[in-house]
Amino acid sequence: MGSEDADSREAIIEATYDALRKHGYTAMTMQDIADEFGKSKSLLHYHYDTKDELLVAFIEQIVDEFEAEIESDEGMPPTERLRTLLDRFVFGPDDEEREAFHVALLELRTQAPYDEEYRDAFDRADRIFRDTLARIVADGIERGEFRDVDPDRTARLLASAIGGARTRQITLDDAAYTVEVRDALVEEYVEGLLLVDDHRDGGGDGEDGKR
Amino acid sequence: MGSEDADSREAIIEATYDALRKHGYTAMTMQDIADEFGKSKSLLHYHYDTKDELLVAFIEQIVDEFEAEIESDEGMPPTERLRTLLDRFVFGPDDEEREAFHVALLELRTQAPYDEEYRDAFDRADRIFRDTLARIVADGIERGEFRDVDPDRTARLLASAIGGARTRQITLDDAAYTVEVRDALVEEYVEGLLLVDDHRDGGGDGEDGKR
Repeated sequence: MGSEDADSREAIIEATYDALRKHGYTAMTMQDIADEFGKSKSLLHYHYDTKDELLVAFIEQIVDEFEAEIESDEGMPPTERLRTLLDRFVFGPDDEEREAFHVALLELRTQAPYDEEYRDAFDRADRIFRDTLARIVADGIERGEFRDVDPDRTARLLASAIGGARTRQITLDDAAYTVEVRDALVEEYVEGLLLVDDHRDGGGDGEDGKR
Repeated sequence: MGSEDADSREAIIEATYDALRKHGYTAMTMQDIADEFGKSKSLLHYHYDTKDELLVAFIEQIVDEFEAEIESDEGMPPTERLRTLLDRFVFGPDDEEREAFHVALLELRTQAPYDEEYRDAFDRADRIFRDTLARIVADGIERGEFRDVDPDRTARLLASAIGGARTRQITLDDAAYTVEVRDALVEEYVEGLLLVDDHRDGGGDGEDGKR
């Protein structure tokens, strides 16, 4: 692929993001993407045959970006890294654009049972999130900061809870919901169950008595 | 409404269930429902003007049934009732039909941001589930079986985790996922954190030493 083609594809991915958050997946057409792209629908079709082909490429790009983003937290101590990762899933009061985009992503996910390529793309996204959570938990256990739990099981529980909270928040306009569930996870599950007593000061930096 | 009309409406709701699990929400047409109904599309339109009007009535009926179902558990002791309620969200290996139906329900939920009536119907469903969870937790605290947690917060965490697990299971064909998360919730969160030490025998019936 020439660099001009690569530039076009990048611009198309950008345009798809804008079209998705404006129209949602179900209602969005190739013409809507072309309008955001500022170029003809035929140029769009030169790069991607169908809306679904374009959207699979789009999800793969989003997942790559998510993977790079969470890898950048790798140097942090386990408790801080766990909080930072959960925080990435929280929407703030000014995040309406991000929320609209995530509604469209959830619409796309509901098409996964009917389409193997969507299924593979979302499965990869889930696994990256869950494997990262499990690695953080395993790291915390190794350092003696976390109790000896099953890292994969803990990762599934945390990923499900934060994912379920987000689904409610974005579909039912319940703006505080993910924050509330994140707080419950951190204060009850992480601090109340996961951290060994010596580390229950909220910092996870090994200093005692900071309460 | 005459009893003949009521019978027709009940048959239409049944037909909608079958059409939804066969076609999903996005692809399903009024004709698909009429085909399952075994009567004309015009009779369908006599009862419901649009597909969305029919689907809102359909969701309301489903939520009523769910409410009646979980009310029937009211006599149980808190720990048993909590397990029974979480179990209702688990799909077994023979539940492909129910899974297909819940994919369609999730598709419908993704339309809630664009439609207030859908939003209200799903919000009611969420609240019934969460309020029931909170009442069970409050009951357990009152009886001295559960630690003194915030019942609403615990309910949000449990509801989010089981809902998030289900979303992954049904969209990505991950058949064991909800069972795994339910087990993690029961064994780690309920038994490890919620139950006071005297009741950690898994039965919640107040007899000690059954381990």
